[in-house]
Formats: sequence, structure tokens, C-alpha cells
Amino acid sequence: MVDKVLGVLGGMGPLASAQFMLRLTLLTPAGRDQDHIPAVLWSDPRVPDRTLARLHGGESPLPALARGVAGLAAAGAGAIAIPCNTAHGWFDELRATTALPVLHIVDAAAEDLARQGIKGGRIGVMGTAATLAMRLYQDRLEALGYEVIVPGAAEMEALVSPGIARVKANDVAGAYAPLAEAAGILRQRGAAAVVLGCTEIPLGIQAGPHAEIGVPLVDTIDALALAAIRWARG
Amino acid sequence: MVDKVLGVLGGMGPLASAQFMLRLTLLTPAGRDQDHIPAVLWSDPRVPDRTLARLHGGESPLPALARGVAGLAAAGAGAIAIPCNTAHGWFDELRATTALPVLHIVDAAAEDLARQGIKGGRIGVMGTAATLAMRLYQDRLEALGYEVIVPGAAEMEALVSPGIARVKANDVAGAYAPLAEAAGILRQRGAAAVVLGCTEIPLGIQAGPHAEIGVPLVDTIDALALAAIRWARG
Repeated sequence: MVDKVLGVLGGMGPLASAQFMLRLTLLTPAGRDQDHIPAVLWSDPRVPDRTLARLHGGESPLPALARGVAGLAAAGAGAIAIPCNTAHGWFDELRATTALPVLHIVDAAAEDLARQGIKGGRIGVMGTAATLAMRLYQDRLEALGYEVIVPGAAEMEALVSPGIARVKANDVAGAYAPLAEAAGILRQRGAAAVVLGCTEIPLGIQAGPHAEIGVPLVDTIDALALAAIRWARG
Repeated sequence: MVDKVLGVLGGMGPLASAQFMLRLTLLTPAGRDQDHIPAVLWSDPRVPDRTLARLHGGESPLPALARGVAGLAAAGAGAIAIPCNTAHGWFDELRATTALPVLHIVDAAAEDLARQGIKGGRIGVMGTAATLAMRLYQDRLEALGYEVIVPGAAEMEALVSPGIARVKANDVAGAYAPLAEAAGILRQRGAAAVVLGCTEIPLGIQAGPHAEIGVPLVDTIDALALAAIRWARG
């Protein structure tokens, strides 16, 4: 029986963190309830919008994030996973508020690239405008030897940002076409793989015929779930 | 913005409680993250098996359930939902440990029957052997004027119990055939609707062509999620 408790700082968005819990369960080798990983999900959709905070002077999400981490620690969590890429823009500040280890979603995505056999070359990264502006993926992946390309401003405005917003409004079916088109453009620009670097994006992509996009995808929900399982069982 | 925090006592099984979080999100009318319901999910798959406890003298789940409720209260929950039917066999004892309101999954299922326009007549109920032996559904639904039928002992042993166990072992696809067959037998015996009175059962049923079963179904995960949304927005 696993006795480590995973703390999940979620609600950003709530559908992505629910999907994280589902994938955490399905990716765990288990024969009965008692083989699964104990977890506490703190799903707080009231956390101020991360993109507004970083790019448009909106309220900082840090106090709400720190409250969640403290709540998870009080509930007995032994580590924290955050199924929201943009929130990792406050990773260092958040880690300074807790003694618990915090898994990093970009490290988990990089491990998934390696798991898929993609050890170098050009990688496309989709994410919120804030995630891309903060260079959360570019700096970490370039340090590992990858070349990173991202959607242009016009594609962000017409495809990626509206696709993410549709998932947050529960319209996963409507999110497929714009998100798949943006991924396809990155493939045409030579990406050997596309990282779905916002946890809403895999929900939209999986709502349609994603195999047709024709490029390996890194689902950052699954990547983080696999990192969490490794922590819990390691 | 919703400021009530829903406490979800889950992990029984973990896939069912993750699905509860997903359905809670998808059934909430929302246009952005901040419209969704704040929730804390306490997913503790270590809770002793409820059926073993009730029918075979196994360890009581009550202390673990009470620990979860206390943890959710400490995290700020304003009400408790328990996406596990069998755990409701300890409902009164659990409610005695907390000042918080606890939603009852059988009441939620009864509301769903009425929502589907089924106001009386013969209702089939599938559930764990313990849920049926404790008459969790029979007593409450009969008091509302329904006649309740349940699978026979042979069907429980050959179809329902193995189907539930497969979901707990992550084999939702393999759970479909036995669970759908058991539901079909209840339809043949005259059920006007079948209540999927174990939260693993809807996961198995939805993994296959469930419309072919040919009888209205009550998904107790959705029913409880709708009751929780009503509480949060009420």
C-alpha cells in the first residue's frame, strides 16, 4: 500500500485538475483501491488569472497559490504537483513558502520527450501567452539541447488563446479545431514534437481526431501524473 | 464567484472520485475558471474495503472516513459529498462526527429519477453486495413509492461484483460487458429505470455502447455532482 500522500494544487483550470486525477489513477498499476496513490486535490478556481497577472498587471496569484500549498501540507501531503503550466511562473516564490518538494511540470514534459525517444532537434511548444512570454519552456528545453519554436502572435490570438478559453468554459469539442490547427502549423514549421504546455490544451486536442495532427505530442497532464507516480512509488 | 467550498470524500474508488470531479466541473455552467466551484478532494484509497467490512467482518472504514471528513473541514469545506454508495452504510455515524452538512447519494439518485420523469413503478438497482444487503436504496426508494428489484445472487457473483472489481483495477473496457448484461436482465424483469448504485458502475457502463441497454439509467456520480452544484450555488 502506498503511504505517501500527493498534494495537487489545482483548479487552474478545474477540468484540467480533474483530468489530472483521472490520469494519475489510470496510469497507476493497480489491482484494487488500496493499490492506488492517496492524494488531496485542492481545486481552487478562484486563483487570480495567471496570464492577466503576468502580462496585464492583474492581481498576483501567489497568495492564493501559497494558501493552497499550506492547506495541502496541513492535510498531510508529502509533495506538491501543480497541473497548470502558467502557475509555474511563480514556482520559485512558491517553493520558498514550503518545506515540501514541488514537482516541476516542465521537467516532467522534458522527461516525456526523452521517453518518446526525442532527444534533440526542433520542438514546438504551445501554451498561454504568459507561459511563452516567461520562457518557462524555452529556457529549460534549450538548456537540454532542444531548439524551441512557438506559435506567432497572430496564431496565439486567433487559435491558441481562444482554444484554451473554450476548455475553461467546458467547450472541449469547440476547442479542438483551433488547437489542432496551431499544432499543425508548428509541425509544418519543422517541429519533431509539440509540447501541449498548458493543461487545458490536451483536453481540447483529445476531443477530436488528434492522430491526424501527424506529430508526436507531449501531454503535460500525463507527464506530470507519471512524475507524481514515480515520486509516490519511488 | 462561488465562495462555498465543496469537500469531496473520495478514493473509493479513486477513478470514481476523479470522474466525480470531472463531472462536477462539466455540469457547472461556467464561462471561465473563476465561475467554477471551489472543491477539495480527499482521495484516500487506503480506506478499508466497505463490502468486506459489512459482509465479512473486515476492518471498519469509519475511522478512515471520519479522518477524511475532519481533514476536509480543516481545509475549509462547507459541505461533504461522498462519491461512494457503499460508504453511505456508515452515513449516520459519519454525520455524527461533523457539524457540516453531508449530501446523501441515494437522495441525489432519487432526485435524478424524478428529473428523468420516472415518478413511480419498478426500479432496478445495481450496487455492491454490501449496498444491496444494507438496503440503502430499497428502504429510501420504497418510502418514495417505487418498487425496487436487484440482481440475484448468481448475477451478483458472475456479473456485478466482477464488473466493479475490474473498474477498481482500471479495466473499464472489460467491465462493460458484465455490467451491461446485469442491467439488461433488470430491464427484462420489468425495470422502468436502472440505478447504477455504485460509482464504479457508470465508468464501466460508459466504456461501451450503453444506449443499447435500452432502459433509462441513473448515474450516481452525475446525480451527486448535480446535488453538489445545487448546494454550492443555492
